[in-house]
Amino acid sequence: MSDIVRLHTNQRMSRVVKAAGLVFIGGQTAGDPVADVKMQTAQVLEKIDGFLRDAGIDKTRLVSAQVWLANIERDFAGMNEVWDAWVPQGCAPTRATVEAKLAAAQLLVEIAVVALA
Amino acid sequence: MSDIVRLHTNQRMSRVVKAAGLVFIGGQTAGDPVADVKMQTAQVLEKIDGFLRDAGIDKTRLVSAQVWLANIERDFAGMNEVWDAWVPQGCAPTRATVEAKLAAAQLLVEIAVVALA
Amino acid sequence: MSDIVRLHTNQRMSRVVKAAGLVFIGGQTAGDPVADVKMQTAQVLEKIDGFLRDAGIDKTRLVSAQVWLANIERDFAGMNEVWDAWVPQGCAPTRATVEAKLAAAQLLVEIAVVALA
Repeated sequence: MSDIVRLHTNQRMSRVVKAAGLVFIGGQTAGDPVADVKMQTAQVLEKIDGFLRDAGIDKTRLVSAQVWLANIERDFAGMNEVWDAWVPQGCAPTRATVEAKLAAAQLLVEIAVVALA
Repeated sequence: MSDIVRLHTNQRMSRVVKAAGLVFIGGQTAGDPVADVKMQTAQVLEKIDGFLRDAGIDKTRLVSAQVWLANIERDFAGMNEVWDAWVPQGCAPTRATVEAKLAAAQLLVEIAVVALA
Repeated sequence: MSDIVRLHTNQRMSRVVKAAGLVFIGGQTAGDPVADVKMQTAQVLEKIDGFLRDAGIDKTRLVSAQVWLANIERDFAGMNEVWDAWVPQGCAPTRATVEAKLAAAQLLVEIAVVALA
């Protein structure tokens, strides 16, 4: 029976959980959301890079991703521009992108990923 | 090649599937949705406790969770109050919470989780 | 350390990723969305059948699914009719279905699945 490793854990959630050979990173949002979707996406992906590092891996190990956009019609292209530049060539995860209202009005994008440990 | 164990299965979905060392529990909603978000959240988490038990584990094995709220602005705090009290100390899963209209108008919250077998 | 197999990969996403004994298929939408939700659902599930085949498995190995509908009140029953007929008896995955605006206005349904390799 393998074990669970939790990183950056509080009473509500862990930012990272390693289990069953996978690394789960929960939905991340911009730390400084006073920005357009490109800047928020860049902040989110920088957070994810850091959490992958904390888990001992990097973005070449991405398996799947979910992206939520507060306004998909307006912001799909901008998010994708930053996303496409961030993904290492040949290492793209599966992805689903849908519109959803997020936990605070100023948040434009939230991204969760699963990676291989 | 490991195998799949399905519990509470009908033609549309299984409530629980065990595979690859993980336990997947699909999106659960309140059985008696005539209630506010706190009571609905409590009902959902009680369902999840039961399904974890059926899978031979408990909530200390939570890996990741997704929460959908029909009205995130109004109900985020109420859901979190019940959620935070339910999560065992030091065992919080990763989480993503977004707003989404659910399958019936009276449903205020839906939660899906992945746990370690 | 097991490895990652990516299929149908471009700079943005892979359609299929195999890792940790699981097969992840990202959010799929209808190739010809000039259709009602039943025809779009059938197109999506045909795509998923093909991707499962590419991964060396089939729909009897489904573990979990997420369904997004652009209009859940109108289209939940129609999607379910096609879904229920597609799922092999006794092999239903866990599932969560919520409403979400999708990446293009004509898209009515998007489905992502995880299966066992």
